[in-house]
Amino acid sequence: EPEKISQHLVEANLAGHDSHGVIQIPGYTDAHAEGLIAPGTGFTRERETAATALVDGHWGFGHRLAHEAITLGIDKAHRCGISAVGAYRCYHVGHLGAYVRRVAEAGMVGIIAVNDGGGGQRVAPYGGIAGRLSTNPLAVGLPTGTAAPFILDISTSIVAEGQVRLKRVRGEPMPLGWMIDALGQATTDPEDFFRTTGSLLPLGGSVGHKGYGLGLTVDVLAGILGRAGHSRREIPPYNNGLFIVVVDIGRFLPLEEFTAEVRNLIAHI
Amino acid sequence: EPEKISQHLVEANLAGHDSHGVIQIPGYTDAHAEGLIAPGTGFTRERETAATALVDGHWGFGHRLAHEAITLGIDKAHRCGISAVGAYRCYHVGHLGAYVRRVAEAGMVGIIAVNDGGGGQRVAPYGGIAGRLSTNPLAVGLPTGTAAPFILDISTSIVAEGQVRLKRVRGEPMPLGWMIDALGQATTDPEDFFRTTGSLLPLGGSVGHKGYGLGLTVDVLAGILGRAGHSRREIPPYNNGLFIVVVDIGRFLPLEEFTAEVRNLIAHI
Repeated sequence: EPEKISQHLVEANLAGHDSHGVIQIPGYTDAHAEGLIAPGTGFTRERETAATALVDGHWGFGHRLAHEAITLGIDKAHRCGISAVGAYRCYHVGHLGAYVRRVAEAGMVGIIAVNDGGGGQRVAPYGGIAGRLSTNPLAVGLPTGTAAPFILDISTSIVAEGQVRLKRVRGEPMPLGWMIDALGQATTDPEDFFRTTGSLLPLGGSVGHKGYGLGLTVDVLAGILGRAGHSRREIPPYNNGLFIVVVDIGRFLPLEEFTAEVRNLIAHI
Repeated sequence: EPEKISQHLVEANLAGHDSHGVIQIPGYTDAHAEGLIAPGTGFTRERETAATALVDGHWGFGHRLAHEAITLGIDKAHRCGISAVGAYRCYHVGHLGAYVRRVAEAGMVGIIAVNDGGGGQRVAPYGGIAGRLSTNPLAVGLPTGTAAPFILDISTSIVAEGQVRLKRVRGEPMPLGWMIDALGQATTDPEDFFRTTGSLLPLGGSVGHKGYGLGLTVDVLAGILGRAGHSRREIPPYNNGLFIVVVDIGRFLPLEEFTAEVRNLIAHI
């Protein structure tokens, strides 16, 4: 298990997601020391039908649990054409690109939405000044018929928390538009985040209602359907909620035709 | 059929989506006169499994076809827990909120992605200066247990084309950040859009790679899985491609518990 987690973290750095790479290790060791992670735990299936499942991660390492949940989703989509798997009580699952890459490598379309179970309320609603949502990321993976699948891996806030941490570590100011301070004024000082007086802004800038709406959608999918807990006044224990959708391309067109069209699209744009 | 379409358009205005309301009527009558719409057409099922379907709209009015596709998706999710329906050769389907509202009213989660079948390439890639994608919208509907479901209905560009048309009709400049001209310089003149020299920008501003990635994802889901055609050099005939996912909430938790949690979330944020 430690080897797999190390590999996942290094891959995040190599994919350019330094915010989700080895910078996370001190946090993981602290969480383990505090008893917030139960290493070696696998998930149990709480509810299940042919195309759907809700799984309980029993506070294990998120990286392992997310890989298991993705495998279950691929298996169900193979049988039913499309599947949905919700998961909760997983510790931090890390960068999402790794999971949807697995789906793309299986010749399917993968979509994953993740929340912090109601914790990490550091993103202000559009027009608000105090944090109410976590950075609630989502990722999409599509096969291209090459060694490089199409991977989208984004937070629904302007940036992920780890990006602010990187700016602090590097001693750099943040660009304008990332954060507001406790009075709702723009700030470029990463310390405003760690003093917990500042809030990240939702994706979209002047049309931030779009990123805010996407963040809310992720909170419902991962936190309510996925049972991890949603953003609320009484913050529940930290866990990642997952909601995974896998689509079997072959139910719509032959895989080779799909990947040829994706390559044609990518060449055009 | 004309009554249903009129109702859909007026509802778009009442929902605040003036860009998709009665302003569209002259375009529809022109398209009908040019033989681009075949009124009264229903869809045929080209491929079908218990949880998935690909349907051909035979160039009928999109409003009717999208409602039929949504009904099919709800029916399949009811039986399988989750469903995916792709549709193509539909004329303009109008504002998407109406369709996901139907799903929410059925006590399910609805997600719909729509492209222009490779036409309407007016959105520049992040960092590019010429249009390559259409505004590729997506919408989400969630039941709340009240008469007002949660509806997200957004383009993956900064704004939809109709918003530019509204600015032109009202004789107002656009805000900075909506569009660039043929040289990639910011412009606030709506006429730059109609002279086809200007391009809309993807959602996200300084992190526009996020909106661009979402727009590409919609192009693949609606244009390749949904068979409507994707963005490419040779522009195919105009049609809306649809990709609809419906999730039966009851497979994850009781509907009443879901709606109570959504109301709790909305009250907090």
